[in-house]
Amino acid sequence: MQPSNPQPLAAKHPAHAPGMPVVCVIGDGQLARMMHTEAIELGLSLRVLAGATDSAAAQVAADVVVGDYTSFADLNRAAAGAAVVTFDHEHVPTDHLHTLCESGVNVQPGPTALVHAQDKLVMRQKLSDIGAPVPQFAAINTVDDAENFWDRVKGQVCLKARRGGYDGKGVWFPQSKAELIDLCTTLFDAGTPLMAEQKVALRRELSAMVARRPSGEIQPWPVVESVQTNGVCTLAIAPAPGLDAKTQSEIQKLAALVATELQVTGALAVELFETSDELGRNRILVNELAMRPHNTGHWTQDGCVTSQFEQHLRAVMDWPLGSVAETAPVTVMANTLGADIDPAMPMPERMHQVWQKLPHAKIHLYGKPHRPGRKLGHVNVSGTDWDKTREEAEAAAHFIVHATWPDGYTDENIGG
Amino acid sequence: MQPSNPQPLAAKHPAHAPGMPVVCVIGDGQLARMMHTEAIELGLSLRVLAGATDSAAAQVAADVVVGDYTSFADLNRAAAGAAVVTFDHEHVPTDHLHTLCESGVNVQPGPTALVHAQDKLVMRQKLSDIGAPVPQFAAINTVDDAENFWDRVKGQVCLKARRGGYDGKGVWFPQSKAELIDLCTTLFDAGTPLMAEQKVALRRELSAMVARRPSGEIQPWPVVESVQTNGVCTLAIAPAPGLDAKTQSEIQKLAALVATELQVTGALAVELFETSDELGRNRILVNELAMRPHNTGHWTQDGCVTSQFEQHLRAVMDWPLGSVAETAPVTVMANTLGADIDPAMPMPERMHQVWQKLPHAKIHLYGKPHRPGRKLGHVNVSGTDWDKTREEAEAAAHFIVHATWPDGYTDENIGG
Repeated sequence: MQPSNPQPLAAKHPAHAPGMPVVCVIGDGQLARMMHTEAIELGLSLRVLAGATDSAAAQVAADVVVGDYTSFADLNRAAAGAAVVTFDHEHVPTDHLHTLCESGVNVQPGPTALVHAQDKLVMRQKLSDIGAPVPQFAAINTVDDAENFWDRVKGQVCLKARRGGYDGKGVWFPQSKAELIDLCTTLFDAGTPLMAEQKVALRRELSAMVARRPSGEIQPWPVVESVQTNGVCTLAIAPAPGLDAKTQSEIQKLAALVATELQVTGALAVELFETSDELGRNRILVNELAMRPHNTGHWTQDGCVTSQFEQHLRAVMDWPLGSVAETAPVTVMANTLGADIDPAMPMPERMHQVWQKLPHAKIHLYGKPHRPGRKLGHVNVSGTDWDKTREEAEAAAHFIVHATWPDGYTDENIGG
Repeated sequence: MQPSNPQPLAAKHPAHAPGMPVVCVIGDGQLARMMHTEAIELGLSLRVLAGATDSAAAQVAADVVVGDYTSFADLNRAAAGAAVVTFDHEHVPTDHLHTLCESGVNVQPGPTALVHAQDKLVMRQKLSDIGAPVPQFAAINTVDDAENFWDRVKGQVCLKARRGGYDGKGVWFPQSKAELIDLCTTLFDAGTPLMAEQKVALRRELSAMVARRPSGEIQPWPVVESVQTNGVCTLAIAPAPGLDAKTQSEIQKLAALVATELQVTGALAVELFETSDELGRNRILVNELAMRPHNTGHWTQDGCVTSQFEQHLRAVMDWPLGSVAETAPVTVMANTLGADIDPAMPMPERMHQVWQKLPHAKIHLYGKPHRPGRKLGHVNVSGTDWDKTREEAEAAAHFIVHATWPDGYTDENIGG
């Protein structure tokens, strides 16, 4: 939603902390909102380039520039005077970012890094070049390319839009060669650049997050298990259950390699498939990259000394990174995705009932109106064992979404 | 600093989270600022009644009403549509709050509770009535009252302004009866209502914080030791070193008694003296009360599952209170008070150097311009032993203030 005549609010409410840098965030969603939380404590001034004043971030921030992230003029206006420009999504046109950099704006992560989180084919090629394990893949520029790839991977095809997909959008699993050809034809007609990957028989998904500063320092968080439902993250379990220390260390090294080789700055999420090779041995493949705070890192708000939002700000400022020590043995994050029909019970009453049973549940809401499937918030629960903590986090999130406890969940079997 | 023609900014940037209450905070300092941090995560909309748009809270909040907290019209304007009105200081005229309540505004804590944090004589009398241990005290309405009290406590007199004092302001320790008489004469002429207390030979100061909901639930945080320098809190050490479990439990019961009997809602800080009776036995006396988040509770931001700012918001909303479990064995908070001369090194560089040595130091800044002695921020450090954690917190705060490490502090003896 772009106003026809965007006006910056900054001039009307322009106060910044004296002597402290302004950080400009492009994007107005929950990630920018939660960056603002941490910016306040660090004494930074956060400026948000927002599509609307009622967006998740704009409704809580003082310095809001209303504009369109695909407009160079708006990007330039938001960047004015900022020590650094960073992102809450990867949809800013790469060319605009190059132009900003050429005019002296400090963009972190820079466009040459960010393109790897924008274009899935560029990402796959680069990862392959640096020796990171990836599924088989191919550029799909013609129907012939698609047919050849189908044959090569014996029909195990995952077709992807090279740009713009997220949360299961822009990903297709054709069931036949005919369906693949139809899909490609339709998408080529729509002007959608495509690639394909081999569909992976996965055991589970993991996420390895690190933060990296322009000057090179890297800090990895513990590797987490990420549970996806219909392509959308619903749970993150930290640390990943049953992941041995050697594998975790190898995965952290892989994420650090990606961060260094791609010159990523700020938070980097390396989404991973845990699968098996032909001999049944455990194998890790890189799925996606995100160069910003990520859903699988929300648990750090309540489970780590330094949250991903604080670390991202420190990293893009090229400030020393914070301790990533955990503050509890286990932390589970459960997303609260809008139900098909929003329950009549008001949200404050739902929170009330969750806290009545689970006083240690940390509820985070994004200030968004309800829409089915929409990420409206998340719940973090810390504890000492995986099963109980996961059960509590899922129950709390379920109640926030549905205003009912999950089946079989009664007063008696919920811990205080 | 009050603008001559205050205009609310709310109308220009009015977006609130749909379906979520607006909490109005009277006051624009660091406490309101840090409430905003937690309000964002809870999905609440915080409105700040601020004296200026560049104040600590106004510079980071979206919904800012510029006005004067001593003006009923401004209070009423800020309260419009808010689910609850609360405070970041106790200087709002009690009568205005009664009038707001009569017109149906939900004020938490209410004026009949708040008056005990506003008027030290009312507080002392009430505490005495409910059997809480307090120093000997007297109303000082005449010079005769002062002379009589001097004789009664053998010259161990602490004279206090009944209203308006904080951080060592409004407190005098006359060295002679003549000086006491002079002081009283001057202060009576200035129209300052007075009281006096017996000066206490204290071992140390403690602080017991609890939160209480209107419906009665109370949660106590661990009792902390509070170190004061020239009447200003400089350190809070959580939990208080060497405090046995029985004494801590008695103190928590005392704080809960005060909260219940005075009908306090939100966060309550009960500042305590630890002293000795005639037989040398440990004795606890209540010093001051604050009915809001308090400097001695800042450690909860990084050392507790639920910070005092989140708990205060939950309490004034009458929502169930959060877990007060600690996330580390020890957390020490050190204030960063403006140095006599602000060092030339820019603040971001000071933060940089602190984090280089102490990546687990949590720096919180309030966005205020430098002024000698002013509370500009604080540092929280968590650890496993009191001495090392205190040393690190003090060193970090010292560097933030002075841009130098304390004497004898070198790279070698600072832990990572």
